[in-house]
Amino acid sequence: MKINNIPYRTIWPTADGAVEIIDQTRLPHEFVTVRLESMRDAEFAIRSMQVRGAPLIGVAAAYGVALSMKHHATDAALKATCDMLAKARPTAVNLSWAVERMRALLLPLQACERADAAWLEAGRIAEQDVKINQAIGRHGREHIQVIHLEKGDTVNILTHCNAGWLATVDWGTALAPVYTAFEAGIPLHVWVDETRPRNQGASLTAWELAQHGIPHTVIVDNAGGHLMQHGLVDMVIVGCDRVTAHGDVCNKIGTYLKALAAFDNGVPFYVAMPISTLDLTLLDGVLEIPIEEREQEEVTHVSGLCDDGQVRRVRLTPEGSKAANYGFDVTPARLVTGLITERGVVAANTAAILAALAD
Amino acid sequence: MKINNIPYRTIWPTADGAVEIIDQTRLPHEFVTVRLESMRDAEFAIRSMQVRGAPLIGVAAAYGVALSMKHHATDAALKATCDMLAKARPTAVNLSWAVERMRALLLPLQACERADAAWLEAGRIAEQDVKINQAIGRHGREHIQVIHLEKGDTVNILTHCNAGWLATVDWGTALAPVYTAFEAGIPLHVWVDETRPRNQGASLTAWELAQHGIPHTVIVDNAGGHLMQHGLVDMVIVGCDRVTAHGDVCNKIGTYLKALAAFDNGVPFYVAMPISTLDLTLLDGVLEIPIEEREQEEVTHVSGLCDDGQVRRVRLTPEGSKAANYGFDVTPARLVTGLITERGVVAANTAAILAALAD
Repeated sequence: MKINNIPYRTIWPTADGAVEIIDQTRLPHEFVTVRLESMRDAEFAIRSMQVRGAPLIGVAAAYGVALSMKHHATDAALKATCDMLAKARPTAVNLSWAVERMRALLLPLQACERADAAWLEAGRIAEQDVKINQAIGRHGREHIQVIHLEKGDTVNILTHCNAGWLATVDWGTALAPVYTAFEAGIPLHVWVDETRPRNQGASLTAWELAQHGIPHTVIVDNAGGHLMQHGLVDMVIVGCDRVTAHGDVCNKIGTYLKALAAFDNGVPFYVAMPISTLDLTLLDGVLEIPIEEREQEEVTHVSGLCDDGQVRRVRLTPEGSKAANYGFDVTPARLVTGLITERGVVAANTAAILAALAD
Repeated sequence: MKINNIPYRTIWPTADGAVEIIDQTRLPHEFVTVRLESMRDAEFAIRSMQVRGAPLIGVAAAYGVALSMKHHATDAALKATCDMLAKARPTAVNLSWAVERMRALLLPLQACERADAAWLEAGRIAEQDVKINQAIGRHGREHIQVIHLEKGDTVNILTHCNAGWLATVDWGTALAPVYTAFEAGIPLHVWVDETRPRNQGASLTAWELAQHGIPHTVIVDNAGGHLMQHGLVDMVIVGCDRVTAHGDVCNKIGTYLKALAAFDNGVPFYVAMPISTLDLTLLDGVLEIPIEEREQEEVTHVSGLCDDGQVRRVRLTPEGSKAANYGFDVTPARLVTGLITERGVVAANTAAILAALAD
């Protein structure tokens, strides 16, 4: 998508054999790219969250393997590289998936063949992500278009967290339908939940929509219900981290509250996701999905841009108060209108999910 | 309630005829009291939100009239004082109620009688607030006690925004049952919604609970649904700004989302309020109550304590993104378990509300 009218991806190979990324820890107040020249650079970029979002982390790790193979392509180096990169972020499923795909491809090859093969494969993983997201975009756009035709006016879409192009190589998941509909000329406007505690909406989603020129308004996470009561939201589209065989959706904390409000007001609630997000080993998401508890400081403190141009961290709570920080919640399938996948929009129930997988 | 183990109110007369308040704009990072010596001091305290919360604003205005009468007690001075104080915060119903009560009492009196009469009346308004809140506390405590007896363990209460003693003269509305149950030795713990955008929960509610020694944990506004899904909330108690004849509740933005989650998980959802909060001119709250839109900057910026000890304001959103800021939302009566008033717990429907008013 575009930054200041120039098309970008979140990660790209350079002509001289390095990799560049957008440093997402500096957004939204500074746009800075970082050059990765070694496996250690890639590992640091993942660990420090310069790159984040499951699909992007996977691609960054694949490029990390490729950068490593240019310097040392022995079996030992391959093993050490893959083991280290797989541990850079413990909970990201795409990370180990991408690393194991690279390992399986490279291990049978001669050491001298590995550098070129790894470089090509990392590029293929990146392209595959883009293709999947474009397909999600096409399928989601159809639903936006239907609403536009029925309403005859601007379509208001609410999203939570950042499942935009910054979380992927390009297009995003939840925002792929938004970008695709925007390119098709459908008038739309996005309500951006700020998404406390880490504010991925206020910082990343707002920034990428602003850069691409898509009309949007930031709201606090408390506001969605009021907007839906007053007909100001036509549909909700969120991303997700995991979907169970029953169609229960694990996503950023607060998603469940928005889904309840959508259901209460008859607003369609869509979850955009690659098919690979399905986890058929799980049935009841509320009972079975363990929810990560993160550091208190993400709740008690927040960072932002001071008037003096410095990014500073401030404390919001009193000294004597502790905080709890649950990273995700589970939205029961009964509240989900549909799962927007690269294979089409799938109903959030076991039969439809199994049928989509069998396609 | 207590601050650092010393009993306080939010406003009190001094021995030498002035009034002191807690400067709530400095909380939670500094505890500062301010001396009011004139009507202008009182008007500034209300306008600048050194005092906030409908009941407290009313009492501060009454004391403002009393301070004015000490200096000038002519009819013209009384009119000018009342007119100016009534405009200090345009939307606060208690403010004009208290000012008009003072005006009606003082106008028939001789100028030389007004100073003493005003001082006594301001004190009576303050005591009346305390009595109402104590009664709300007693009625609400019974419900906490029932849950404690059934559960045989600590009662977890979730609250939104600040309807604690800082919003009143003492005890609070939503937190009066909490303080009363705590004094009665019932083991309890409060989940404190931070309450974006103005963070009254993270700053004021957390601070007053910490100072009084009540166990509590700050959470982001997104977390309540997850907690309720996992049995970690036994009841919700919130305050409110207005309740319609149907029992619809207008309160801080985000209340509706918590009520939906409580309903979905069978968690009792109580609204604590003086009977005077009822507005029988309104029926359907969602359709009829106009919702104030406030400044964008409350969403795009936030203040807190920096590591260097300075309170600073930081920007959370990118330059190019606008924000919307709705101050309140309406929770339909169907989601409300009961209204905790000074006359007992009243069901949220017209018949029960009219019966309570007739008592």
